[in-house]
Amino acid sequence: MLTFHDHRTQNRRSTSELAGGELIAPLECPERVDMIADRIREVGLGDIRGATMHGLEPIAAVHDPAYIDFIENAWADWRAAGYTGEAIATVWPTRRTRSDFVPQNIDGKLGYYALAAETAIEAGTWEAARASVDIALTALDHVQTTGEAAFGLCRPPGHHAAFDQYGGYCFFNNAAIAAQAAREAGASRVAILDVDYHHGNGTQQIFYDRDDVLFVSLHCDPVHEFPHYLGRPDERGAGAGEGYNRNHALPPGTDYTTWVAELEAAMSGIDDYDPDLVIVSLGVDTFEGDPIGSFKLVSDDFTDYGRRLAGMKRPTLFLMEGGYAVAEIGINAVNVLAGFDRG
Amino acid sequence: MLTFHDHRTQNRRSTSELAGGELIAPLECPERVDMIADRIREVGLGDIRGATMHGLEPIAAVHDPAYIDFIENAWADWRAAGYTGEAIATVWPTRRTRSDFVPQNIDGKLGYYALAAETAIEAGTWEAARASVDIALTALDHVQTTGEAAFGLCRPPGHHAAFDQYGGYCFFNNAAIAAQAAREAGASRVAILDVDYHHGNGTQQIFYDRDDVLFVSLHCDPVHEFPHYLGRPDERGAGAGEGYNRNHALPPGTDYTTWVAELEAAMSGIDDYDPDLVIVSLGVDTFEGDPIGSFKLVSDDFTDYGRRLAGMKRPTLFLMEGGYAVAEIGINAVNVLAGFDRG
Repeated sequence: MLTFHDHRTQNRRSTSELAGGELIAPLECPERVDMIADRIREVGLGDIRGATMHGLEPIAAVHDPAYIDFIENAWADWRAAGYTGEAIATVWPTRRTRSDFVPQNIDGKLGYYALAAETAIEAGTWEAARASVDIALTALDHVQTTGEAAFGLCRPPGHHAAFDQYGGYCFFNNAAIAAQAAREAGASRVAILDVDYHHGNGTQQIFYDRDDVLFVSLHCDPVHEFPHYLGRPDERGAGAGEGYNRNHALPPGTDYTTWVAELEAAMSGIDDYDPDLVIVSLGVDTFEGDPIGSFKLVSDDFTDYGRRLAGMKRPTLFLMEGGYAVAEIGINAVNVLAGFDRG
Repeated sequence: MLTFHDHRTQNRRSTSELAGGELIAPLECPERVDMIADRIREVGLGDIRGATMHGLEPIAAVHDPAYIDFIENAWADWRAAGYTGEAIATVWPTRRTRSDFVPQNIDGKLGYYALAAETAIEAGTWEAARASVDIALTALDHVQTTGEAAFGLCRPPGHHAAFDQYGGYCFFNNAAIAAQAAREAGASRVAILDVDYHHGNGTQQIFYDRDDVLFVSLHCDPVHEFPHYLGRPDERGAGAGEGYNRNHALPPGTDYTTWVAELEAAMSGIDDYDPDLVIVSLGVDTFEGDPIGSFKLVSDDFTDYGRRLAGMKRPTLFLMEGGYAVAEIGINAVNVLAGFDRG
């Protein structure tokens, strides 16, 4: 399988993640990509090719243009306000306050567009987030041109990014942008299968009222885990999208036997949907050693479910999402891809 | 004028405020109270008396009981989760996510009940927040018993705390709790005049649909300042409360001439309302030297407006809110009270 990547993802080098009441070195770090790329070469998965620039239009097909402007300018605005740390939201619109105007100062804007405070914006964020989208779209181009599966080694991840909100290490929703681009290129139906430990709240939100993109997610129940306020099974879509959003919310500590049974159920639903393209939001933070996950998958399980995914026999685009056990992230992510290739 | 205070307010000794992307020593610090108490003694404003315990019932008359439980248990829950820093929210419900259930884990709960991340919960928060309410209610008792004005030297402040939300250094809304207690003790109408630099979003929210408590606030326009998502002039109350919420939103850099003209207009509206009690949410972060304010009041201006407040000739309860120029906080707060006494 070919991998697509772009070195500009390394431009995001945040130093501050708010966690446990402290500022720590971010779990979503550039080394994650290095480990995956190294493993791809080590096992000979296939070539790693560069990404081509796709511009802002595909991003604006999914995200609020005002939000895109905000991401572009946030760091400069923050610096202009005289702050010396990275840009972290400290106040936000919530129930019983207003969201019908965007404040003019940077603290107000930051909170308006944020859904979490663990994710800082810094100097390289805009360029890295755009590169991540270009990676996804270039990998999509390959799938569409050849019918072969491809892997977009995206960073930063995307599935928490909503129409006009960032957080959970995500700024632009790579999977949603790719799904929309595939639709515009002629795909009748696209399925997004999100296997990250955390619910893909952004992807769900973007397609919630649509039946042309099916969103299926396996994740830890949000009553116990980030993103907490979305991802329950009773969220089944709205309007035309009713029935096209499927949340498999699993309890903390879920093991592979339970997890893969849910995967099979999810794949069965995707097969019934008969999509022209499957996009896999590939988070490997379901690994037993993940520092912020509680599931119990071992490295061989990733190979196994990669093989099962191949059984769908659909054009498949893998896009990298989460996974924070840096030493094993390459093994686990590439196990899925290699399992798929062998499946 | 008598002052009421309780040493338990000193139990809140947070070490972490998230500001400018960094964790700094909190602006809302115990020394604020010391400076005010010292100044009271220095100018001979009057005795400082202790607070009597008033229990949870008056708090539950204004705040969600589940929220009160949360504030009581948050620190223990946070520590039980293994965190070593102070408890700071990192993710929150916002537009297009759900607020119809409270997550079970502490991160999810914290974000559910928070409206800002600058305010950490630590070991002494619960006791200090309760003491602050007891101070307000004891000072209210004195006003009700004697008809004299009184000063509740509250800490933590209260006016940002809403029905079930904390933030902006506030946990329980002292002014709202006192207003509700006054109503239950027989006052027909209570006016709350909030002169803090920041909009009293919590107080507004609590009484937004009621006509028995008038809320009038002078503050910096939220499009430029915290709390950002509430406090605009078009928020005039709802239902029975229509017309009983009045926001005088002023531009950054407002000087005393402009400010006091708005105060006179605010007082005129209060006079028309003919309240049995006026509660002044006394923030002195309108001072020109305040580290997080932009207004231009000088210390003598506080004396002047204290004198003007006396002109309302109403039973008056002063409750301490913000003010972060620690060296001058005593001078400015006591100038208001002494001006009132001489007025």
